[in-house]
Amino acid sequence: MTKTGTIYGVGLGPGDPDLMSVRAHRLLGAANHVAFFRKAGRKGQARQIVDGLLAQDAVEIPMEYPVTTEIPVHDPRYNVLLSAFYEEVTQHLIALVQSGQDVVVLCEGDPFFYGSFMHLYARLRDVVPVEVVPAITGMSGAWTATETPITWGDDVLTVLMGTLPQDKLVDHIKRTDALVIMKIGSNYQKVVAALKDGGKFDDAWLVQFATMGKQTVTKLSDMTDSGTPYFSIIIVHGQGRRP
Amino acid sequence: MTKTGTIYGVGLGPGDPDLMSVRAHRLLGAANHVAFFRKAGRKGQARQIVDGLLAQDAVEIPMEYPVTTEIPVHDPRYNVLLSAFYEEVTQHLIALVQSGQDVVVLCEGDPFFYGSFMHLYARLRDVVPVEVVPAITGMSGAWTATETPITWGDDVLTVLMGTLPQDKLVDHIKRTDALVIMKIGSNYQKVVAALKDGGKFDDAWLVQFATMGKQTVTKLSDMTDSGTPYFSIIIVHGQGRRP
Repeated sequence: MTKTGTIYGVGLGPGDPDLMSVRAHRLLGAANHVAFFRKAGRKGQARQIVDGLLAQDAVEIPMEYPVTTEIPVHDPRYNVLLSAFYEEVTQHLIALVQSGQDVVVLCEGDPFFYGSFMHLYARLRDVVPVEVVPAITGMSGAWTATETPITWGDDVLTVLMGTLPQDKLVDHIKRTDALVIMKIGSNYQKVVAALKDGGKFDDAWLVQFATMGKQTVTKLSDMTDSGTPYFSIIIVHGQGRRP
Repeated sequence: MTKTGTIYGVGLGPGDPDLMSVRAHRLLGAANHVAFFRKAGRKGQARQIVDGLLAQDAVEIPMEYPVTTEIPVHDPRYNVLLSAFYEEVTQHLIALVQSGQDVVVLCEGDPFFYGSFMHLYARLRDVVPVEVVPAITGMSGAWTATETPITWGDDVLTVLMGTLPQDKLVDHIKRTDALVIMKIGSNYQKVVAALKDGGKFDDAWLVQFATMGKQTVTKLSDMTDSGTPYFSIIIVHGQGRRP
């Protein structure tokens, strides 16, 4: 009888390979099967991070999204396409694991923090063994890049997605001390307007490609571009108690 | 002329040494001077995490808090004592660095996320070179321990300290999707009451000693103890969009 393998959901951290965990590094070097999401026609950001760290004979399993930004996320077709895709990928991984193979799934950032891996995890966890390796979040990479602590003392930290409606963004921006905004991309102008309404625009920083070679850190009020790439995070630092 | 050294504020992650970053691991093994906070008479949690990872001849610099929970944080004497302590430690580290030594300062969790190191950083950054190595936060360790993702889709995540007034806790608990509460300890009963008022008590998990040998994960409603240790984090998972 074949021994069932394990799926490892391995967080890679914010982008600099030197910031992945010792456990992640060890699992990658030993992996025979490595799966990762990517946009069709691209190498994939997660795969890029592990360049040079995989065994020569590791079998790579690219999982290509059928859609990324071509259809808005609230369009019903988006969910239909994505859920069929996750289902198909899940069946492929289950077959591999049941044939006795371990599979490492590469995850940008921390796997359980707004990650794509979660959609596989929800489908896999009751069927085959799954282990999750946490990682440094993209937002930790971003606030470290600003060279300023994000939260002090009793500060409240709120994490918002740029995909939220503007009035909801404003409501949360007004009430928090420290703030992180992710998933900005095409929501950039809405997010900027919400920060102005919420009174935090002047204190906001935009970090692009945190911890990666092309990292930039800019006061949001100094931005001249009308948009920003996907790997962008807005940071507003807390100002709480400090002896 | 002596070359000035560098202070490295090195995040160690949530507690399992296997979860520190590759960079942190390398810096620790090469360090000649290693400083860390601890409560007087204790070994210190940060020092404990790096057991077996330091060079035999590394010089250890324990920094002992003059006060931890003996005086409430809002008592004016607390700030006076702490700020004199941070000042003294800072002067010692500056002298070492100016004599040409590098110093690794051990930081539990991520250095810029509610960390004690920030109080040194604020005093050091304009005087000597300081580099900060981000790390996996204690909260990432805690939500991974629950084996359930913390945030999906557009979920709002709010991070609260148990030291906040109860009405402020309730206000934020009501408005968020996903929730993390830290600094619980002696605030445990207040936090429980706030979660009940805010309608999230039944969905809350208590994680003690996340990623460490004595880790426990308990539904908060199943807790029979009237208190909880310092290394405790409450988690309420978001329920957002998922294809």
